[in-house]
Amino acid sequence: MVQLKEDERLDYLLAEDLRIIQSPSVFAFSLDAVLLAKFVYVPIQKGKIIDLCSGNGVIPLFLSTRTKGEITGVEIQERLYDMAKRSFQYNELESRLQMIHGNINDMPQKLGMGKYDVVTCNPPYFPTPSKEEMNENEHLAIARHEIFCTLEDAIRVSSQLVKQGGKVAFVHRPGRLLDMITLMRQYRLEPKKIQFVYPKQGKEANTLLVEAIKDGKADLKILPPLVVYHDDNEYTDEIKDILFGDKQ
Amino acid sequence: MVQLKEDERLDYLLAEDLRIIQSPSVFAFSLDAVLLAKFVYVPIQKGKIIDLCSGNGVIPLFLSTRTKGEITGVEIQERLYDMAKRSFQYNELESRLQMIHGNINDMPQKLGMGKYDVVTCNPPYFPTPSKEEMNENEHLAIARHEIFCTLEDAIRVSSQLVKQGGKVAFVHRPGRLLDMITLMRQYRLEPKKIQFVYPKQGKEANTLLVEAIKDGKADLKILPPLVVYHDDNEYTDEIKDILFGDKQ
Repeated sequence: MVQLKEDERLDYLLAEDLRIIQSPSVFAFSLDAVLLAKFVYVPIQKGKIIDLCSGNGVIPLFLSTRTKGEITGVEIQERLYDMAKRSFQYNELESRLQMIHGNINDMPQKLGMGKYDVVTCNPPYFPTPSKEEMNENEHLAIARHEIFCTLEDAIRVSSQLVKQGGKVAFVHRPGRLLDMITLMRQYRLEPKKIQFVYPKQGKEANTLLVEAIKDGKADLKILPPLVVYHDDNEYTDEIKDILFGDKQ
Repeated sequence: MVQLKEDERLDYLLAEDLRIIQSPSVFAFSLDAVLLAKFVYVPIQKGKIIDLCSGNGVIPLFLSTRTKGEITGVEIQERLYDMAKRSFQYNELESRLQMIHGNINDMPQKLGMGKYDVVTCNPPYFPTPSKEEMNENEHLAIARHEIFCTLEDAIRVSSQLVKQGGKVAFVHRPGRLLDMITLMRQYRLEPKKIQFVYPKQGKEANTLLVEAIKDGKADLKILPPLVVYHDDNEYTDEIKDILFGDKQ
């Protein structure tokens, strides 16, 4: 049983035998979150994972199918934190998944330095929100814009939370590649794997996936390109596989 | 007429109605040089272009088909400089193409600061040559290893030679992406276009193309991926098009 509020829906989490509470007017997960949850390394049997800017908890939910470790989500918006918490309860994952309501900048002090094996983050993408956007929908504006969390905040906090040798994975727009790399190196996170996602064959990339290792040595690999749609707007096989796995 | 020395050959420059002097034991141009020459922006009607670490002049020769501007190649190895010079003569391009024999680090003083519209560079890829490699073939070792020209040298000199608002394009291995970007920004070259080249579908990228603008504003695009071979080791259509154009 789960209580749904206002226009919330209890959506299926794609291929997984999981459900997730979403609301079109507040927050619904994106393909980017799914791609990050598939891209990142996770320890299978145990370990501590933390997801920053967690929204409705989509990344912890996905990761729960790839690891038996403990996963913590951090979300600043109480409404989204509450959706995530109820989704974890609905899926009976509370023993391994927990949500924290708070600002990511407070987490190193609250949770301790260097305690996590893996940090994931799908941060707000856009630097400056316009007044209209803020007025129109505060929930979406906070999730999309660097109002409470800049890219530098997210990277600094990730570096503080992760163990030496641990992994930090981000998804962002390719336009921020240079900032991402510069900031990661500044905070001792060495990028090791980068993957670009292209909406269609022959188009510029619109998504960037990066995995770094705390104090890792320089040795970057550019993974094979991911193309999302065929020319007829059908998902490509590789994306269907990520989204629906063997349930196609 | 052209004089060929030792094991030199007068090869066709692929799709172009041009010939180029090469020698398997000294220097033969690579696909990377061709990709860079197709990737870089060039002014069509006029302008000054300079190619650093020019080898046997393959990039100036290619670029001569895309622009009516003046193109200068700089090469430190006298043997390669001499091959390039003879190729320019053979193709009757001496009025627009010139070679300079010298160290790129001396060029800003010799040629002046901020005089070029475009700088291209296919630098040596490997940081440290082993003793054996040096002994085995000095010509190839100098072309491939950062003996006389580090990546930082090439980027600093490019930045000094290019005009404000001018373009600088490099080809390198993806493993040097982070150094490339960090160094470019350090020398006021803002990366604007990056393209990754993958040997085959599903493989990691093995070549990186970057174009930056001197004092440009941050706005990076990741161009569509280039895949070189089909699974059966035939060139893909896009590579055939780059290599052979309408002469297929």
